[in-house]
Amino acid sequence: MLKLGVVGYGYWGPNLVRNFHEADGARVIATSDLDESHLTRLQVRYPTIETTTQYQDILKNSEIDAVAIATPVASHYSIALDALKAGKHVLLTKPMTQTSEQSLRLIEEAESRNLVLMVDHTFLYTGAVRKIKEIIDSDGFGDFLYYDSVRINLGLFQYDVDVIWDLALHDLSILDYISGMSPNAVSATGISHVSGQQEDIAYLTLFFDSNLIGHIHVNWLAPVKVRRTLIGGSQKMIVYDDLEPSEKIKIYDKGLVLGDSETTRRESLIGYRSGDMWAPQLDATEALNTEAAHFIDCVTNGTRPLTDGRSGLRMVRLLEAASRSMAARGQPVELTRDGRAA
Amino acid sequence: MLKLGVVGYGYWGPNLVRNFHEADGARVIATSDLDESHLTRLQVRYPTIETTTQYQDILKNSEIDAVAIATPVASHYSIALDALKAGKHVLLTKPMTQTSEQSLRLIEEAESRNLVLMVDHTFLYTGAVRKIKEIIDSDGFGDFLYYDSVRINLGLFQYDVDVIWDLALHDLSILDYISGMSPNAVSATGISHVSGQQEDIAYLTLFFDSNLIGHIHVNWLAPVKVRRTLIGGSQKMIVYDDLEPSEKIKIYDKGLVLGDSETTRRESLIGYRSGDMWAPQLDATEALNTEAAHFIDCVTNGTRPLTDGRSGLRMVRLLEAASRSMAARGQPVELTRDGRAA
Amino acid sequence: MLKLGVVGYGYWGPNLVRNFHEADGARVIATSDLDESHLTRLQVRYPTIETTTQYQDILKNSEIDAVAIATPVASHYSIALDALKAGKHVLLTKPMTQTSEQSLRLIEEAESRNLVLMVDHTFLYTGAVRKIKEIIDSDGFGDFLYYDSVRINLGLFQYDVDVIWDLALHDLSILDYISGMSPNAVSATGISHVSGQQEDIAYLTLFFDSNLIGHIHVNWLAPVKVRRTLIGGSQKMIVYDDLEPSEKIKIYDKGLVLGDSETTRRESLIGYRSGDMWAPQLDATEALNTEAAHFIDCVTNGTRPLTDGRSGLRMVRLLEAASRSMAARGQPVELTRDGRAA
Amino acid sequence: MLKLGVVGYGYWGPNLVRNFHEADGARVIATSDLDESHLTRLQVRYPTIETTTQYQDILKNSEIDAVAIATPVASHYSIALDALKAGKHVLLTKPMTQTSEQSLRLIEEAESRNLVLMVDHTFLYTGAVRKIKEIIDSDGFGDFLYYDSVRINLGLFQYDVDVIWDLALHDLSILDYISGMSPNAVSATGISHVSGQQEDIAYLTLFFDSNLIGHIHVNWLAPVKVRRTLIGGSQKMIVYDDLEPSEKIKIYDKGLVLGDSETTRRESLIGYRSGDMWAPQLDATEALNTEAAHFIDCVTNGTRPLTDGRSGLRMVRLLEAASRSMAARGQPVELTRDGRAA
Repeated sequence: MLKLGVVGYGYWGPNLVRNFHEADGARVIATSDLDESHLTRLQVRYPTIETTTQYQDILKNSEIDAVAIATPVASHYSIALDALKAGKHVLLTKPMTQTSEQSLRLIEEAESRNLVLMVDHTFLYTGAVRKIKEIIDSDGFGDFLYYDSVRINLGLFQYDVDVIWDLALHDLSILDYISGMSPNAVSATGISHVSGQQEDIAYLTLFFDSNLIGHIHVNWLAPVKVRRTLIGGSQKMIVYDDLEPSEKIKIYDKGLVLGDSETTRRESLIGYRSGDMWAPQLDATEALNTEAAHFIDCVTNGTRPLTDGRSGLRMVRLLEAASRSMAARGQPVELTRDGRAA
Repeated sequence: MLKLGVVGYGYWGPNLVRNFHEADGARVIATSDLDESHLTRLQVRYPTIETTTQYQDILKNSEIDAVAIATPVASHYSIALDALKAGKHVLLTKPMTQTSEQSLRLIEEAESRNLVLMVDHTFLYTGAVRKIKEIIDSDGFGDFLYYDSVRINLGLFQYDVDVIWDLALHDLSILDYISGMSPNAVSATGISHVSGQQEDIAYLTLFFDSNLIGHIHVNWLAPVKVRRTLIGGSQKMIVYDDLEPSEKIKIYDKGLVLGDSETTRRESLIGYRSGDMWAPQLDATEALNTEAAHFIDCVTNGTRPLTDGRSGLRMVRLLEAASRSMAARGQPVELTRDGRAA
Repeated sequence: MLKLGVVGYGYWGPNLVRNFHEADGARVIATSDLDESHLTRLQVRYPTIETTTQYQDILKNSEIDAVAIATPVASHYSIALDALKAGKHVLLTKPMTQTSEQSLRLIEEAESRNLVLMVDHTFLYTGAVRKIKEIIDSDGFGDFLYYDSVRINLGLFQYDVDVIWDLALHDLSILDYISGMSPNAVSATGISHVSGQQEDIAYLTLFFDSNLIGHIHVNWLAPVKVRRTLIGGSQKMIVYDDLEPSEKIKIYDKGLVLGDSETTRRESLIGYRSGDMWAPQLDATEALNTEAAHFIDCVTNGTRPLTDGRSGLRMVRLLEAASRSMAARGQPVELTRDGRAA
Repeated sequence: MLKLGVVGYGYWGPNLVRNFHEADGARVIATSDLDESHLTRLQVRYPTIETTTQYQDILKNSEIDAVAIATPVASHYSIALDALKAGKHVLLTKPMTQTSEQSLRLIEEAESRNLVLMVDHTFLYTGAVRKIKEIIDSDGFGDFLYYDSVRINLGLFQYDVDVIWDLALHDLSILDYISGMSPNAVSATGISHVSGQQEDIAYLTLFFDSNLIGHIHVNWLAPVKVRRTLIGGSQKMIVYDDLEPSEKIKIYDKGLVLGDSETTRRESLIGYRSGDMWAPQLDATEALNTEAAHFIDCVTNGTRPLTDGRSGLRMVRLLEAASRSMAARGQPVELTRDGRAA
């Protein structure tokens, strides 16, 4: 039975508490939050969970094996480092830290102590993204040509991160997972419409060694909510619409056909093949439920986390490169093989 | 009665012939095309229109006042220049020419001869775009914050232009018209998936002196067709979906509200205002019909064309800058006040 | 402070407990259910609420002023009658009772004891239905021409009611409320596809003294979920789509225009007027929250319930008539002015 | 080479002329219409086709083998009878005639003269309906449980037919074709909202010997256009949306599962099976093109028409029964095995 502490009970913390508390093999022992009213809400719902405004109380509790941290990103590094030093396994919400140096330091600390360090890239635990991965890895998909995501809505401005660190990160982690490739350059553009605030609209293009291109389109000022990703292969194309209640993934049997006859050449070298569309039934398990079970497995059995510290670090390096490019109006930032800006 | 010659009867030419032939105050006298089978099709439909495979025959015909040119872009410059030299008014399909030097030369020729030179940026003559212009110019729209367009489908590869020159040009001309502003820089990224072919996916970001940002997203490889533009103002936001049969434009009474209370400040400085949505009835006249009437008016009465040579030139300069940026993976190209790359 | 008991904690009971417990001016004292596991669920969430498997315990509790009943319909009559006899105000989920005689008996009991008897026709407390009522009552709507509802999905078969008593009742109560009229006849058709089970697909037509027609289309076997109602006036038409997340109501400025010119007469006597579409912002308060406040007001201040026993009775009479017609393959059942089958 | 005359060049006639004129194995020789302006339109487009305001001229023309009739329904009987008597094969637009007696008389005349008599039930020649037929006839569909169609829009009032004879006929012919069964009773309801005019809204329920139920929902007063049919089988369910540009047919792998465990029995005897969805690519050939080829084949090779006079007669008998039921507010009209009202 894994005994867990949860630090932060604001927006995302309640989901962590609920999923871990209801998971087989785990129990939430204590939760901390700076805001006492959040703790009161918790107690109404879970009278058996201890509460405190001092996260250090959780770290001191020798009964607790692992800590899930759901605080603003500015505090991720110091809380996670304290937790590791106290010998706790750590699950960190995203983005992992504010800088890649901090991420690297946490990884080293966790490795030296042989502790699990996992990052909560939730989308990788959804039935939809797992089905997409399965399709891309299958024979019939062909070459991976593009990943193109629109993730927009009238969203709350975040005071600590811009729209890239808030929304684009979801797509960066999905693309990292389904492609198994790291970009060799990123170009980003964006704008802040409110003086003194971070960017609220941004666009990222990711370049790869292959002929894959990635594009991510995020916006906190859109009048309508859109969560739609097009994923193009040379033989099949996928539309992933996360707002569709039942058919989130549609697979189109469409692809390129390279012509060779002289007549074709005159007007166009390329034709299209078009066939059926297919929407597979998806596993509807809540992502965080799957993720909690995976974290429990990692701590208990030493399984390597799918979203380990290294994957968190890769994402933070990409975010840093995107921020640099955005500040220079799209000037591309080259990335080394291990994801550092060149 | 304006007497018209049409050069090119392939994809777009038939629309020009139909609209001018049915317009009040004009008649199509002759049409040329290199492909005789196209001319046979024309004769079945319009037995009274003369046909020729030599466009020079049209220019020599002294009865003809004006020429509409709907040939591949590579031939625009030479045919248009010949037509102007032959004293004909000219309507050129888009893009105006392959280079900005050519556009400038045509403008000079037309001005020196006092002839009308108009470019067929068709979308500016639709009821939808005109209504959008009206809303943006009205009091209730607030500051123009962003223009964000997705224009994708499984499209025929063009052998003479890339996806920016083919599709993004529509949005460049719409944004030029509705904003009345010229960008001060452009960053573009894109990729070609077929060896030896032009780019089939591209993304453009346009920067302005104000806090307006423009983004255009074009793709010939998408499994679904999308024609959707979001147009954000600080007080109203517009969704323009050109594939909607009846409600192409939706106006959302949504906007930013800057907070000042201390509690708001802790989590976010900014709130949202949300109200009704409204879809105005649009003028359903075919755009080319409106455009033909405008061209006739320009030739007959000396009215200045909405889409004159200068606007065609501005677009070509933007396209050139976008191409340069795309070749450099998004490196921004600065633009001078008159639209030249700096 | 109204003190409430809730009988039944299966599907709907938890919503009643949550809304009354969080309402100003009320508190849930005790809840009963035959299934102890339901009560355990309740206690985890609301440790202060007493639980019992005997609803009679609630009726005996002199501290309790009112009882909300959310049990299967077969038990509505006896539990409600017991509650009224014990001096409790009563809120009954729908349908009110299995027969109109039972409904009438409950009304008499409540009236003789001066107790509130309210039926939970939830939709009448939604922002959407209230906005529709407001539009229909306004000047610009014209004559009320039709109400046409499709309410279908892959639904659980109910073992105690057919699809009319389950789903069509929602529309009967909405139409009763927004029209303020009672039908003079009903024709219903339907079918049961599973031997020994109640009808799973049904269609109802409602006739009125005016030229209003109502039609309700319910289906437990549909592969897709639809909740869409068209409401036609001679000057405006409304589309109410309850599954739309944001724009549930669209008002079309469309109507009939009776022509009189000779040319019109030859092909058609009637034309159409078409104008803007408008989607008003709706009050997003949860319906049951509004309804709970209304029940508290009725008990505390003697306000007449919008959905009183009489409205519950009218609905049961309509359901009885529909069942009779359905058994006779659509043979119309005439209704008297007070809603009895003639 | 089949030589054809076309009677009527109003709304539908131009489609007949275009499809037959472009078909292999046929040529349109002459066309008649009472309105000379229609004939002028024809001549611009097809200068080689003879025109006349007297359909008798066509019947007298011994060069002509067959006649397609696209006039208002009131004239169908007399023109078709004249044509058959003149020895011409006949293609009649729908509805076949105003009465079933007239249809029967035409069938007898055609049979006695060994002439083809075909009715233009166009939908049966679409790729969509043919694919539906194929699915229903396949093993995996299970029992045919229901056919449920909504066919509504803001439509022109017809001066000669009501909304059932205009719109519902499409569904009657589709259901006749895909089910291969004839209903044993019909119940219809409807209303006319304009004094002196025919019904503009109507609802039909069709009963069968099996546990199939059919329902058709037609409306000329709807603010939105809907063409959606649900087709339920015990193992698969189909949604046919004729307004979808690309995925007109979606097949859901959903069905009923009859439970037998005791726990299931308590709440419901029936569960659901849910799986993938699949949208097959459809033959996009224009229906009238396929139909013209079929008519040519019937005349040339003696093939029996899919939509012969008998099928036209079945439809007219159903329409007559529906009209009778509608006049009696839904009172069901029983039908004999050969489709006569009992």
